[in-house]
Amino acid sequence: MRTVTSENITSVFMSYFGPDTDPRLREVMLALATHLHDFAREVKLTHAEWQKGIEFLEWAGRISDEERHEFVLLSDVLGLSSLVDMVNSVPEGTSSSVLGPFHISGAPAIPFGFDMKRDYEGEILLARGRVTDPQGNPIAGATIDIWQTAPNGLYSSQDPDQDTYSFHGIQTTGADGAYGFTTVKPVSYTVPTDGPVGQILNATGRHPWRPSHLHYIVKAEGYRPLVTEIFPDDDPYLDEDTVFGVREDLVMTYVPHAADTFPDGYMLSGKVNETYLVADIDLKLVPLA
Amino acid sequence: MRTVTSENITSVFMSYFGPDTDPRLREVMLALATHLHDFAREVKLTHAEWQKGIEFLEWAGRISDEERHEFVLLSDVLGLSSLVDMVNSVPEGTSSSVLGPFHISGAPAIPFGFDMKRDYEGEILLARGRVTDPQGNPIAGATIDIWQTAPNGLYSSQDPDQDTYSFHGIQTTGADGAYGFTTVKPVSYTVPTDGPVGQILNATGRHPWRPSHLHYIVKAEGYRPLVTEIFPDDDPYLDEDTVFGVREDLVMTYVPHAADTFPDGYMLSGKVNETYLVADIDLKLVPLA
Repeated sequence: MRTVTSENITSVFMSYFGPDTDPRLREVMLALATHLHDFAREVKLTHAEWQKGIEFLEWAGRISDEERHEFVLLSDVLGLSSLVDMVNSVPEGTSSSVLGPFHISGAPAIPFGFDMKRDYEGEILLARGRVTDPQGNPIAGATIDIWQTAPNGLYSSQDPDQDTYSFHGIQTTGADGAYGFTTVKPVSYTVPTDGPVGQILNATGRHPWRPSHLHYIVKAEGYRPLVTEIFPDDDPYLDEDTVFGVREDLVMTYVPHAADTFPDGYMLSGKVNETYLVADIDLKLVPLA
Repeated sequence: MRTVTSENITSVFMSYFGPDTDPRLREVMLALATHLHDFAREVKLTHAEWQKGIEFLEWAGRISDEERHEFVLLSDVLGLSSLVDMVNSVPEGTSSSVLGPFHISGAPAIPFGFDMKRDYEGEILLARGRVTDPQGNPIAGATIDIWQTAPNGLYSSQDPDQDTYSFHGIQTTGADGAYGFTTVKPVSYTVPTDGPVGQILNATGRHPWRPSHLHYIVKAEGYRPLVTEIFPDDDPYLDEDTVFGVREDLVMTYVPHAADTFPDGYMLSGKVNETYLVADIDLKLVPLA
């Protein structure tokens, strides 16, 4: 293949694969190279633009560490993370949404009715529902790993003023599949903008905001794990989430209730003096194939 | 755009651009996102594969520094670097080829007839030719920044046993556009395989070899700069350069000559006792538009 040309380079690339290459790896790499080559040909990518791309990747590499994952953020704002969620979703279950870079492992177990709000300022949100199979049968022993930002818009991993597991907890459903907890009403927040991804957003006139949400990872034996987010329908960024995470079935109305209707079985029962919000959120898991 | 779907996500991405976005940036980013989305949909990229991709990029980031540019190597082995060369090449001039990661700035000026071989073992190669415009008129005052590996297959920047500018030099053409120097016959060598790019090569059954070459950057006032490589036609890796750098017009025959024909005007004149090789390489520059 002495004469590599801009027309035959993808075939030459293909001819380099060894005969023992894993077929799936071959498929993925070939599709990747084909699209990369088509991209470069279509826009007639210049050397200066290529150089900017290399510098961007090197900067993203330098800024990344155990706590900061700039390549994940890049995937998020390009829509790739959401697309991977969507092409792997199954219509019988609750839609999945982006994991994002702020989940931390090892959150403490919390009992039914736990209060994650504590003394933080903000409206009380009572989130509750059932984990079920696609037919609506309750799933007992499902775990819901819950995390969200504090009212300042920061996750505990971003905020030295919060405890490690502030606004994090894992609840396990009982025989009726029910879960329920109180927290503070989540707020809209921005993705980090002080790195190369922030520069892309700025240069393309995009804002860095995400609509407020509760973040869940739901797991149960024999079912596909579900990573998802729950959004209130009055959030100003609902229709323009910078990471493309919103799906129709993940949008909820937070319904205000009078204080004297606050249910029993919650840590805050009998202590609520003001209106509180309720989010009823059932979560449907799909059996493993 | 509350209902982002796998079908409409590229349009949603497009709708996020601000009205003042630079048109070329918009074009490049939109083509990039379109191909990235098409790729993920076509192969139905799994979360595990996405995760491997993120880990690959983070590893490439960690291994990169001032001396090592793993993202450049990635671009090279995927054919992107060569494709950028080719889509920007002009047919009237000598073909360009990949810059690669081993060029260093500030090489010393060398006079016509300089010897870069010194005491290194290997065959003497006399490289010579003229720098001309597309009509064959000589270009005086053109600079040729020359670099190559030592006989051990390493560039000086990779090899603590070499001086900084070992096998590097910049020669300036005289009124006749001529250049000429002696060196050691270059050898085939491998790209670095101890990082994530090496892992890709290994997993896809590809070897890491590049055919031997002389590397040139040719510059002259009023002409497009040329980055190119010159390959001998008997190199075993000529038809399978792992970075896709070979072009038909960059392949030369190194012609053996008897010692007593060694020309005057070279540092080695009168000192050559064995056969030497000659590479006649004219270099055509294209005027700036």
